[in-house]
Amino acid sequence: MSKLSAIRSTKADTIATARLAVATSGEGFFEITSEVKRFLRQIGARDGAVLIYLRHTSASLVIQENADPDVRTDLVTALNRLAPADAGWVHDVEGPDDMPGHIKSMLNGVSLQVPVDDGDLTLGTWQGIYVAEHRTTPHRRELVLQFCGSCAGSNTGRD
Amino acid sequence: MSKLSAIRSTKADTIATARLAVATSGEGFFEITSEVKRFLRQIGARDGAVLIYLRHTSASLVIQENADPDVRTDLVTALNRLAPADAGWVHDVEGPDDMPGHIKSMLNGVSLQVPVDDGDLTLGTWQGIYVAEHRTTPHRRELVLQFCGSCAGSNTGRD
Amino acid sequence: MSKLSAIRSTKADTIATARLAVATSGEGFFEITSEVKRFLRQIGARDGAVLIYLRHTSASLVIQENADPDVRTDLVTALNRLAPADAGWVHDVEGPDDMPGHIKSMLNGVSLQVPVDDGDLTLGTWQGIYVAEHRTTPHRRELVLQFCGSCAGSNTGRD
Repeated sequence: MSKLSAIRSTKADTIATARLAVATSGEGFFEITSEVKRFLRQIGARDGAVLIYLRHTSASLVIQENADPDVRTDLVTALNRLAPADAGWVHDVEGPDDMPGHIKSMLNGVSLQVPVDDGDLTLGTWQGIYVAEHRTTPHRRELVLQFCGSCAGSNTGRD
Repeated sequence: MSKLSAIRSTKADTIATARLAVATSGEGFFEITSEVKRFLRQIGARDGAVLIYLRHTSASLVIQENADPDVRTDLVTALNRLAPADAGWVHDVEGPDDMPGHIKSMLNGVSLQVPVDDGDLTLGTWQGIYVAEHRTTPHRRELVLQFCGSCAGSNTGRD
Repeated sequence: MSKLSAIRSTKADTIATARLAVATSGEGFFEITSEVKRFLRQIGARDGAVLIYLRHTSASLVIQENADPDVRTDLVTALNRLAPADAGWVHDVEGPDDMPGHIKSMLNGVSLQVPVDDGDLTLGTWQGIYVAEHRTTPHRRELVLQFCGSCAGSNTGRD
């Protein structure tokens, strides 16, 4: 059972790109939803999608519940059970939290897209966008934000 | 050893977006390949890519084998082993299947793109697109489908 | 604490698509970063993003560390612990490595995008793009590479 809505069509005439630096305080989830929204406002985004890309191998991007903070606590616990620190990893020169960080980054991924509808992220009610830091110490993480679609002021040719 | 084919180039002039609602009957995999194909037909898609986005935090999107249904049975088993219900999660107010659902959603993800070639999804022979429901009870899941590329009737300028 | 850079904007006027075939020698990680870069050079890519899509259900796409090869060894170990061969899978007609391959493919995914900035992938210093082969025997894996953005020679209208 499925149902398709009406379709909205517009001209895809713009690519806008910026870098976003996020300071993490160690293992955990750091929300960047408002930073992505600010980027979309600054470029006057209308319809399209925003690509969020994380340039690291021991952190990851996650879209998850932004309501009860216990969910993020449990997500950290779950990742530590899936990739424990004391599991006899060959790669251990950068500390016991490094190889688990690579595994968690592989499982979660570092690249995702969210559709943009009339300037707004089409996130679900309970969704937030997070940088998941997998190292125990604070890190500066760099992301690329890239919008592809139509912007206010450009000829969108919406039909 | 790798080999690159000839390159096909066209004008990316259209963004078309719709919502898709999918009714799930509880834990399991629900194929949406034909719904995505219907969307592409309706907009006259030619060359580009379709973004599929799921607006939920206890379900996910998976591209997997569409032949032997035993594969999906085993995928459900595997996810339940990776994120068991009785594992002492802090977040348990929404039932024992909720926190495992968030973990599975994080691991699988809620955002993916499939290239479109002359109107067709470039899925492999054995690939289908699925909404993976991680809650035990039926849910109505909402997705965003967004095509970016050229459409029939528009000036594609293929060269 | 976060910081957004200056924004660069351009016209998204081109979609360029090719197929890439990769021969794997069995379980492990096979880097395709240079193949993706060659594709971008051949089309004269400027600003946009490249979509990489894998048309298979027992292999996956991973962006991970390209420095210490021990990391990839441990990633293979981690995946085998998460999806062991001798775990009583129902689907076993294609050999004991097949169902674990499907699980690993689901967890890692088969679709990802990397932003392209003035013709270059915006990978982090330690990031490489890999096809992760989850079957024990050699396979020929087919990918779709698709760039969306501006190319040299086209009217980019950068502002």
